[in-house]
Amino acid sequence: MQAVPGSGGVTLDAFTGRYAARTAGMTTSEIRALFAVASRPEVVSLAGGMPYTSALPLDAVGKLLSDLLATRGAQALQYGSGQGDPVLRELICEVMALEGVQASPEDVVVTVGSQQALDLVTRIFCDPGDVVLAEAPSYVGALGTFAAYQAEVRHVAMDADGLQPEALREAIAAAGGRAKFLYTIPNFHNPAGTSLSEPRRDEVLAICQEAGLLVLEDNPYGLLGFDGPPVRAIRARGGEDDVVYLGSFSKTFAPGLRVGWVLAPHAVREKLVLASEASVLCPPQLNQLAVVDYLTTQDWQGQVQVFRELYRERRDALLDALTQRMPAGTTWTHPTGGFYVWTTLPEGLDAKVMQPRAITARVAYVPGIGFYADGSGQRELRLSYCFPEPDRIREGVRRLARVVEAELELLRTFGPTHARRQAGSVQTPAPDLA
Amino acid sequence: MQAVPGSGGVTLDAFTGRYAARTAGMTTSEIRALFAVASRPEVVSLAGGMPYTSALPLDAVGKLLSDLLATRGAQALQYGSGQGDPVLRELICEVMALEGVQASPEDVVVTVGSQQALDLVTRIFCDPGDVVLAEAPSYVGALGTFAAYQAEVRHVAMDADGLQPEALREAIAAAGGRAKFLYTIPNFHNPAGTSLSEPRRDEVLAICQEAGLLVLEDNPYGLLGFDGPPVRAIRARGGEDDVVYLGSFSKTFAPGLRVGWVLAPHAVREKLVLASEASVLCPPQLNQLAVVDYLTTQDWQGQVQVFRELYRERRDALLDALTQRMPAGTTWTHPTGGFYVWTTLPEGLDAKVMQPRAITARVAYVPGIGFYADGSGQRELRLSYCFPEPDRIREGVRRLARVVEAELELLRTFGPTHARRQAGSVQTPAPDLA
Repeated sequence: MQAVPGSGGVTLDAFTGRYAARTAGMTTSEIRALFAVASRPEVVSLAGGMPYTSALPLDAVGKLLSDLLATRGAQALQYGSGQGDPVLRELICEVMALEGVQASPEDVVVTVGSQQALDLVTRIFCDPGDVVLAEAPSYVGALGTFAAYQAEVRHVAMDADGLQPEALREAIAAAGGRAKFLYTIPNFHNPAGTSLSEPRRDEVLAICQEAGLLVLEDNPYGLLGFDGPPVRAIRARGGEDDVVYLGSFSKTFAPGLRVGWVLAPHAVREKLVLASEASVLCPPQLNQLAVVDYLTTQDWQGQVQVFRELYRERRDALLDALTQRMPAGTTWTHPTGGFYVWTTLPEGLDAKVMQPRAITARVAYVPGIGFYADGSGQRELRLSYCFPEPDRIREGVRRLARVVEAELELLRTFGPTHARRQAGSVQTPAPDLA
Repeated sequence: MQAVPGSGGVTLDAFTGRYAARTAGMTTSEIRALFAVASRPEVVSLAGGMPYTSALPLDAVGKLLSDLLATRGAQALQYGSGQGDPVLRELICEVMALEGVQASPEDVVVTVGSQQALDLVTRIFCDPGDVVLAEAPSYVGALGTFAAYQAEVRHVAMDADGLQPEALREAIAAAGGRAKFLYTIPNFHNPAGTSLSEPRRDEVLAICQEAGLLVLEDNPYGLLGFDGPPVRAIRARGGEDDVVYLGSFSKTFAPGLRVGWVLAPHAVREKLVLASEASVLCPPQLNQLAVVDYLTTQDWQGQVQVFRELYRERRDALLDALTQRMPAGTTWTHPTGGFYVWTTLPEGLDAKVMQPRAITARVAYVPGIGFYADGSGQRELRLSYCFPEPDRIREGVRRLARVVEAELELLRTFGPTHARRQAGSVQTPAPDLA
């Protein structure tokens, strides 16, 4: 995350009253400024969701790129198809097969990262006021997209096994036909760190199928499990006609390429291509061919194994440090893959109010409220272990624990944080770039 | 343009009735299938707007990419800022200065090609039913974006000097405050091939400023003029507060990178960043740093001069061939830069009806109707000279002239084409990828 120079000043907006109605939902986050501070080297950032790209075979990728330019340079630098390169779409089907998904390359659309896929799906399905069901908490970037299309997000409760089927049934009934889809991250949830259990995958799909509700399965982390082989996707359980599946190379290869994809039922796929052409014309051809060459000339699955071991070690460092350091009353999830641990502070604390003090103590996290559309999550926060080295993670938790202890001391002296909290609207943090 | 396999069959869409209202405007183009045919090697395609990327220093770009990975690989493969790389934004300001634009890097947002900039500007300004003023004809990709946001396009007449000021005044008055912006391509217009004259630039800006109407200045071709130095942009004529300016490296460097930008008044720029984050999180970092290195280590302006000379030769080949071959009653524009010649067929002919016969005769163009939102342009068509070699261009025009002559023969025998035309809705061609 870059600093936003000048954003601290008051800006007179000559265009007030001329924007579209949807633009009212786009507000500058005050947390941006904190993210800029959090990116200073002396701060241990447990805030961002940045993959550890330094572990990639950078020289091999460099050689692959120069070979690509030498052999197919004019094509790599040219416009491409709106749907995406056909060879890449075939390889994407092979990647999805690792999680049991059987699909035709014809039903895959390459996107500018998974975020564009989220945008396109929301664009073609959601009118203002439509309902989207999403886990509680849910991915902040998805909530931003749903808000940009003026969709109303209703959260569905989760536990350690992911979405609760009964809560899903109730949410569908309560939406009374206004729900357009269920948005779910079944593997190593961002931000919750939990996964949807095998039996619940079948149950969630059956509930949605019975209700005629589309499932939007967002799966960037599925291959980053620490224990055993990947779990079969929801799409792989008879969801061909009812599931729109989102995948990404951002975590298995590199986010700087912005190559993701969406697999959709045929009629939906056609609309997604048209929407993508209106949005970006076509995804970058250079990046697509680079992924093709990476998948076909490099041991990409071996590299994913390198990432898994690296992230597992960092997950262990974070969980051990939390166990050793955090004051009683703090709880957290125990991810078996992915990047995130979801933490709940003791009763009476407020993670957003505490954040400036944490930054002062040189540790950063993301307050929980940004992961809810309804303003809840005050006691919650997201910790990421993907980027810092294990020793830095332990140091970060040490600092965080001292901040929480100081907050508890204040609480005992002056009462609950929320009573001391300054008035002000709840705002969404910037997407997890930092 | 890739073929769209299976798109010929009838698809039963189980999601009918569940899409957003805006999705109704997204229809699959029947012209796509023709484009797929047009990409066969035996067809001379005067249809697509593909820059001639083979003229780029491909090995130098390859070396630049491998150097980038070696020196800043982990950064190039990482997430970046939603607004775009700060060094790139500084360089973009230097590029814009060539057309007289004085701007701060803080007010530049890097986008996934100019198309994403069009999408973001429309997203933040246009509610359904809002009016956008655009030249007649206008860029098909922009019309697709405006349609995707359910904006109503009203065309403003052009002549050889570009937009007609009086027609603009009338269109603004007729819109009665519902117009959100004027969309204009002042240099080497796509598809018209004309440029807005210097006096009219000042006049158009003054008219819009007086009416409080934003100008959306789309300038991908400004540095590709064949005669003399670039003309000062509208933004450079006192438009700091009233012009949103779109630029692109697609024509001066390479479209396969998808790196464009938008320069906007500060308050608008802030909204654009938020909208871009909801849309793609951030533009690809690899591509941005590649452009930085290209601009700073290569003679990029010398390369633009190579492109200018190459395209000038092809423009000459096209205009000469048209003069030599086309039957009386055919007229065309005389571009002094860019990629396109706009052609009007003799009275009674229909370019869309004629297109399958042209393809059969192994020459392709884009029928004019796609460049109008109101179904006009039946006698018109776009010819591109950017991609084929001059000899191929001459052969293409020879084939096209024979087709037009055959159409005229049919006309003399059976009456005007439009009376023979099959019933069916007017559809937009795919964006100019082929």
